[in-house]
Amino acid sequence: MQITGEMLIGQRAVRGSAGSLRAVNPALEAEMEPAFGLATTADVELACTLAEQAFDVYRNIDLEKRAVFLETIADRIMAIGPALIERATQESGLPVARLEGERGRTCNQLRLFAKVVRDGYFLDATLDSALPERTPPRPDLRLQKIGLGPVVVFGASNFPLAFSVAGGDTASSLAAGCPVIVKAHSAHPGTSELVGRAVQQAARDCGMPEGVFSMIFGDGRNVGQALVSNPAIKAVGFTGSRQGGVALMKTAASRHEPIPVYAEMSSVNPVFMLPGALQQGGAGLAQAFVDSLTLGVGQFCTNPGLVLGLAGGEFDQFVGDAVAALAGKGAGTMLTPGIHKAYTGGIERLDGIDGVTLLGRGKAEGAGCAAQAAIYLCEAQAYLANAALGDEIFGPASLFVRCRDEAELLQVARHVEGQLTATVHATSSDRELAANLLPVLERKAGRILFNGFPTGVEVAHAMVHGGPFPATSDSRTTSVGASAIDRFLRPVCYQNVPADLLPPALQDANPLHLARLVDGELRVSK
Amino acid sequence: MQITGEMLIGQRAVRGSAGSLRAVNPALEAEMEPAFGLATTADVELACTLAEQAFDVYRNIDLEKRAVFLETIADRIMAIGPALIERATQESGLPVARLEGERGRTCNQLRLFAKVVRDGYFLDATLDSALPERTPPRPDLRLQKIGLGPVVVFGASNFPLAFSVAGGDTASSLAAGCPVIVKAHSAHPGTSELVGRAVQQAARDCGMPEGVFSMIFGDGRNVGQALVSNPAIKAVGFTGSRQGGVALMKTAASRHEPIPVYAEMSSVNPVFMLPGALQQGGAGLAQAFVDSLTLGVGQFCTNPGLVLGLAGGEFDQFVGDAVAALAGKGAGTMLTPGIHKAYTGGIERLDGIDGVTLLGRGKAEGAGCAAQAAIYLCEAQAYLANAALGDEIFGPASLFVRCRDEAELLQVARHVEGQLTATVHATSSDRELAANLLPVLERKAGRILFNGFPTGVEVAHAMVHGGPFPATSDSRTTSVGASAIDRFLRPVCYQNVPADLLPPALQDANPLHLARLVDGELRVSK
Repeated sequence: MQITGEMLIGQRAVRGSAGSLRAVNPALEAEMEPAFGLATTADVELACTLAEQAFDVYRNIDLEKRAVFLETIADRIMAIGPALIERATQESGLPVARLEGERGRTCNQLRLFAKVVRDGYFLDATLDSALPERTPPRPDLRLQKIGLGPVVVFGASNFPLAFSVAGGDTASSLAAGCPVIVKAHSAHPGTSELVGRAVQQAARDCGMPEGVFSMIFGDGRNVGQALVSNPAIKAVGFTGSRQGGVALMKTAASRHEPIPVYAEMSSVNPVFMLPGALQQGGAGLAQAFVDSLTLGVGQFCTNPGLVLGLAGGEFDQFVGDAVAALAGKGAGTMLTPGIHKAYTGGIERLDGIDGVTLLGRGKAEGAGCAAQAAIYLCEAQAYLANAALGDEIFGPASLFVRCRDEAELLQVARHVEGQLTATVHATSSDRELAANLLPVLERKAGRILFNGFPTGVEVAHAMVHGGPFPATSDSRTTSVGASAIDRFLRPVCYQNVPADLLPPALQDANPLHLARLVDGELRVSK
Repeated sequence: MQITGEMLIGQRAVRGSAGSLRAVNPALEAEMEPAFGLATTADVELACTLAEQAFDVYRNIDLEKRAVFLETIADRIMAIGPALIERATQESGLPVARLEGERGRTCNQLRLFAKVVRDGYFLDATLDSALPERTPPRPDLRLQKIGLGPVVVFGASNFPLAFSVAGGDTASSLAAGCPVIVKAHSAHPGTSELVGRAVQQAARDCGMPEGVFSMIFGDGRNVGQALVSNPAIKAVGFTGSRQGGVALMKTAASRHEPIPVYAEMSSVNPVFMLPGALQQGGAGLAQAFVDSLTLGVGQFCTNPGLVLGLAGGEFDQFVGDAVAALAGKGAGTMLTPGIHKAYTGGIERLDGIDGVTLLGRGKAEGAGCAAQAAIYLCEAQAYLANAALGDEIFGPASLFVRCRDEAELLQVARHVEGQLTATVHATSSDRELAANLLPVLERKAGRILFNGFPTGVEVAHAMVHGGPFPATSDSRTTSVGASAIDRFLRPVCYQNVPADLLPPALQDANPLHLARLVDGELRVSK
């Protein structure tokens, strides 16, 4: 499969004529071939029109065919072979093993959503029988969920496969019956084109309506804003910066018809190191923390950027062990020159704040876009007094906050903004404090984990990759795991609709063998 | 129970000191006793602080106790006796029988949510087992939903009981574990105080934390905006005008932490009268339509304000029959002088539009705030050319739109804005057109009904009282029926959380006997 620099609009390959961009190899800080043509207003409109035209056809295709389509996308991605990994490595600076793993995750995600589609729980099929004898009579009422409509997905820079063209947002939108238009991330256009062509081919293989998928390139914000403003678009999936996410939220809210934006933005992922756990964990715990901090050059949404502990010997020991472990960590290449620049800027900002002490750094390296990890320390009162200390620094930096006592630790927990994750390291001797922390953390984070580190987001039914603002724009949802499909659905009630016009999910005979809530009782079909 | 004019802030009775208001009896156009004191900024803050303080306690109270609290509210409302109905009649102009029915609906709604709480389906309890042997190992993951936090509910004028102080939004918020602050509607403050005192008493009876419920009065928009802007508030329920709902949406979106607004606003509820159904239904169908149009003086969100038919003898006959039926309908008292004025203004606006013909009116009456029903006609092309014809006129007015052919009828169906309901009258001879309409209507409305009229919204599991903008601010939800609880919930994932810290819903032994999704399979507990 060749990389041409074309966009994929429905089944067409279209060369954008509103300027062009090239990928940059961050390790070499060098531009790569080919040039990618950027979308014109007409290109955006064509993609939206095709998506709108495809919606009614696509959403009414058999669930089994929809599931096979998702699986075929996974097959087609695997069929690209090593060329995909090679290009993604060049464009992202991420190592081959990581990208191979990420490709596996991407395909597993598509296959999980194929299962979600087949299981049909997402339809929330609900039936209330007519009660003709009641005064007044109760009509026959049946509810199912249907797709919202065409969805715009913004590829993320930090997962060029799993949160990009055929990543979680695309998989869950397609699973929900919604056509997708991907705005490819400018940091990995070649990877995007390869995956986009795999999706396009899968749509052709499976006889899907043309507009079920498009992928376009665009520089700056204009194309993104044009997509989100288009009346055909009914929802938005985004993973990226707080600034970028908030801008999309504002655009979506100011449309004539406001639409939901699912933006996953900013999280420092507090880790509470309680004394018993520190005593028991020793240097191994500090090493595990540093491994999590520097994994993927700290470029995970769930990177542990904030560590809280109680002043005392256990915490001092942990700090010392962490500094020692960090000193041995090499600098890794960041995704883009822009991200690298923002990271070094964030470090410089921290360096300039009174009351914040640099504890230690990883190894320095001279190569382009290489990030040197860093750990800082401040006292809880300083942290509470300066809101800027709560801001995410995207990369391998973490701020340790020392609390005088349990009350102060709980105060900091209540003070932090919304988070994707909150972590507690605790043994049975820490139980009381852990129990006091838990209700605070439930209100702050989408995922609470014990005795582990937040990097590593399992794709499963019970996963929540979400959380209160600014972690995401909508705490009622998750962008990873089976429930991500719920973001793109809305309920419709059918009242006294003739049997021969009812959708299959709601027919008396239950031909899809769905679990259904019937007169308030859950009935699981065999 | 006496009406004092006080607000209910937690367990306190507080006289507002930011001015006062009085109820107006719309039938007499006369002010009523007593004066109700309006909330100061400090009152708003006290209510929010108490709600915030109550949240962690309330959301962790046993589900059984939460259910009993809801049932106790219903009991306490019934215990007010005839005084409630009497006051509500005076304040709303609605007849006694209607208000008695609405009181029953309000209590049924509270009892339905007690069942919803006990059933526990809303928790979405989901467990994925640890896979320690896998590479990498999968952690133990468990998901449940918890409440969003304190909710502000705006009482609606048109249902002084069922969509007001202890109405659907309040019942579903409390069921979700969220404390509620009601901004009482100024049109029925006495009714609000009586019901508010019933809720306050129920909270005391059941040993609920003080801030679980407050109710305040406020004139104009300032108090509403202050409530929605308060950082303690995490969601908003509103039923009212499009203008009012959109203003709240803007306020909520421009907060530092944006929050969801569930505004149920504006719907003209198109009714498609297909030729076979018209032929079969005859004059009885026209009478049933007019009964629905004038029910509650047309003051239902689901009032049939738009009727579509195919040009021809059947439609002409229906028009004639409807005009005849309407001529016999007396004028009814509207809820407030303001609503009456807006209705007459809407009628005058229609009278002035070229291409819109007055077909007939109900009986005129001289009494204060009495509304004379009206039916208008225009051709489909005129309707399509003038967006203003799609605006809701709140009250007993309906616009008939005559379509040249089926294509034009489908074109109008695609043209209308989002709706709470869409209705089709069809017999088997209309099947093809009905089948073509259905997918269009699925995208336009929250509820599709056949061979009935949209007024009458059953409180059931499968009900959807929602729909795309501007019917509501959030098409993903319903404000009536069991699923209304979903609006006030968010998922939390517990990863490797020690067994003794897990919430009951997620413990291995399943002590709440919940249906749970375990490793992707739905297990119904006995």
